[in-house]
Amino acid sequence: MKEARLVVGLMTGTSLDGVDAALVEIIGSGLFTQIKLKHFNSAPFDSRIRDQLLRVASGKLVSVQIISHLNFLLGILYSEAVFRLCKQARIDVHQVDLIGSHGQTIFHQSEPSSFCGRRIASTLQIGEPAFLAENTGITTIYDLRPRDMAAGGKGAPLIPYVDYILFRDLRLGRVLLNIGGIANVTSIPPSAKIVQVKAFDTGPGNMVIDALIRRFTQNQRKFDHRGDIARSGKVIPSLLESLLADPYFALKPPKTAGREQFGELFVSKLLDQEGSHPFEDLVCTATEVTARSIARAITEFVLPQAHMDQLIISGGGAHNDFLLQRLAALLPQLEVSRSDDFGIPADAKEAIGFAILANETFNLHAGNVPSATGARHPVVLGKVVYGNNYKSLRGIVKS
Amino acid sequence: MKEARLVVGLMTGTSLDGVDAALVEIIGSGLFTQIKLKHFNSAPFDSRIRDQLLRVASGKLVSVQIISHLNFLLGILYSEAVFRLCKQARIDVHQVDLIGSHGQTIFHQSEPSSFCGRRIASTLQIGEPAFLAENTGITTIYDLRPRDMAAGGKGAPLIPYVDYILFRDLRLGRVLLNIGGIANVTSIPPSAKIVQVKAFDTGPGNMVIDALIRRFTQNQRKFDHRGDIARSGKVIPSLLESLLADPYFALKPPKTAGREQFGELFVSKLLDQEGSHPFEDLVCTATEVTARSIARAITEFVLPQAHMDQLIISGGGAHNDFLLQRLAALLPQLEVSRSDDFGIPADAKEAIGFAILANETFNLHAGNVPSATGARHPVVLGKVVYGNNYKSLRGIVKS
Repeated sequence: MKEARLVVGLMTGTSLDGVDAALVEIIGSGLFTQIKLKHFNSAPFDSRIRDQLLRVASGKLVSVQIISHLNFLLGILYSEAVFRLCKQARIDVHQVDLIGSHGQTIFHQSEPSSFCGRRIASTLQIGEPAFLAENTGITTIYDLRPRDMAAGGKGAPLIPYVDYILFRDLRLGRVLLNIGGIANVTSIPPSAKIVQVKAFDTGPGNMVIDALIRRFTQNQRKFDHRGDIARSGKVIPSLLESLLADPYFALKPPKTAGREQFGELFVSKLLDQEGSHPFEDLVCTATEVTARSIARAITEFVLPQAHMDQLIISGGGAHNDFLLQRLAALLPQLEVSRSDDFGIPADAKEAIGFAILANETFNLHAGNVPSATGARHPVVLGKVVYGNNYKSLRGIVKS
Repeated sequence: MKEARLVVGLMTGTSLDGVDAALVEIIGSGLFTQIKLKHFNSAPFDSRIRDQLLRVASGKLVSVQIISHLNFLLGILYSEAVFRLCKQARIDVHQVDLIGSHGQTIFHQSEPSSFCGRRIASTLQIGEPAFLAENTGITTIYDLRPRDMAAGGKGAPLIPYVDYILFRDLRLGRVLLNIGGIANVTSIPPSAKIVQVKAFDTGPGNMVIDALIRRFTQNQRKFDHRGDIARSGKVIPSLLESLLADPYFALKPPKTAGREQFGELFVSKLLDQEGSHPFEDLVCTATEVTARSIARAITEFVLPQAHMDQLIISGGGAHNDFLLQRLAALLPQLEVSRSDDFGIPADAKEAIGFAILANETFNLHAGNVPSATGARHPVVLGKVVYGNNYKSLRGIVKS
């Protein structure tokens, strides 16, 4: 078996924007895995596909055909993303050893509810991996959340394992903050063992800000570039207070948040103020909600547990300079930086993460962090679809 | 690696009745695989679950939560089915090497239609395999249809590969007929190579008959035991003619049929006659439709292609003595028997089949028959979820 593998990681987040693809060279496996990012790109979904995904993810009633067709269509799009990534990186697709694909989450409920006489929690990712394995010939690891849930976990967050591999430090305590649609933190004390890693969702990341921008620009703009709009507005104190009163923020971790919590309802509270306040003030208030809920979560649930020195930010929200400025002001104890400063581009971290997790699964290593997900024990994540390269990858000479 | 493996095959068909589970000893792999059925059982779904499945499979609009929760719930039920099977067979679940799980089909469209600007065909099976691997510790192969579709096939039928392994003969031409909700045939000429195997759906199997029986007995009875009700009635010629005029029956193979084709609409044509004809005559006519459509398919599309000697019947419909009698009368050229006469109980054949297909996937052998599904080439089917037994199963000493 080769020492260094080329692995593609594919991620489509709750923002439903498009496919992020990372080409990663991975040496070894397990907690001493070393990686080098070779290439990264991001391709937006066609608006028709995004509309269908938004409808499905909104909880509206849909036909099974739409879910089934979207599952296959996303699988096809993922395989096209791999070809595009390899072309840009100027490598032949056959040089890739493994693909790790998260899939598109269309449902996630980590707390059980009554269903047909049982207590059921569940998660549903789509993006049929057979197209990846068939079209590219590359063995594909897919759908990494259900196994953690089968072991009693919440199926999220999964990135803490990756954070531990990439960011643990002997002397420094580090908080990793990913600001996607939802924001989440991973805390790694100095010299931590993996069982000391904690992680949870703090609440909204860009989801509320982006919804406002899309609404007010009639979809002409999709996010607040560098936070310039928020910076030009001012906070509406009563609205801020009302939004921060959401009970989620006081809940002790482990906890997970989803589109259903901070989507429509949260945004509509802001839009109710549309007539009486300038647009900039609403965006500024939404940004402040994100900043304060993150700062509160770190101050109440992370800092009392262990010594922390740095806050390292990734995800689309890392480009929001104003948000980062607010976080630095609210968390003066921590040195704030972007993951880019550690060689991991903010936008690429999750896609890189699923490349690393796929490599762990292929090597039969567990990839969940039970102290983060609540699972009863570590488990090997995901489903494997054999590509034409499987035998040589596994070092099987004859079957 | 062991020479003989214990493999569990799990099947839930379009009749949505419950979980069929077969414990099979498999020696070797590939076209010379030998098998021995150790135990078989069938557990009906709780009526609440069946109602949800019927709703989802009917094409009505549903919430994504229901699909996501059903996916997890069926996964849990499948793992319970494995424990029950092992208990009845008096073996420890840890002696099982591999599980092959078909899943429950909730959507299958083999012909592409326009979707988001592309031409998409798709299939969707549910029954989360992470629960099988997690709860039993056994490596699980799941969801075997999408890979064939990714390779341009219709994703069905998959049993022809199994038929070829179990029933091919040097001297005799054999037609395998499985009468489930839908009926399908596999034809294997004498001394056939696998590329000579053909297979297709002939149309309704028990689906229409069962729907009538359920309707007229208010769900007290689920099928026409031995065909006694049909036998006591007589065919309504005009209705028979009208039903047999369905264009599906004249279509040349390869072709696949589903619940959407021979479900509600077909049954309602029969129910329209409810007032003017006795119940027995409607059941008799529905049975004659099944018999004639099968006989026509074999006469028009199978017998002109190759010499055939035997018709070997499996599936729930094999217990319908009257239907078998009609088939024997309509196909005097063929010697009619049940698969039981060949050591494969009629009810267990499909579950046994998915055990065999799982063993093929584990051994990296293709499991589709391109001449049956229309795929561009043979492919390794399914998704693998690693159980705790994976390393020893694969003969991996250290990772």
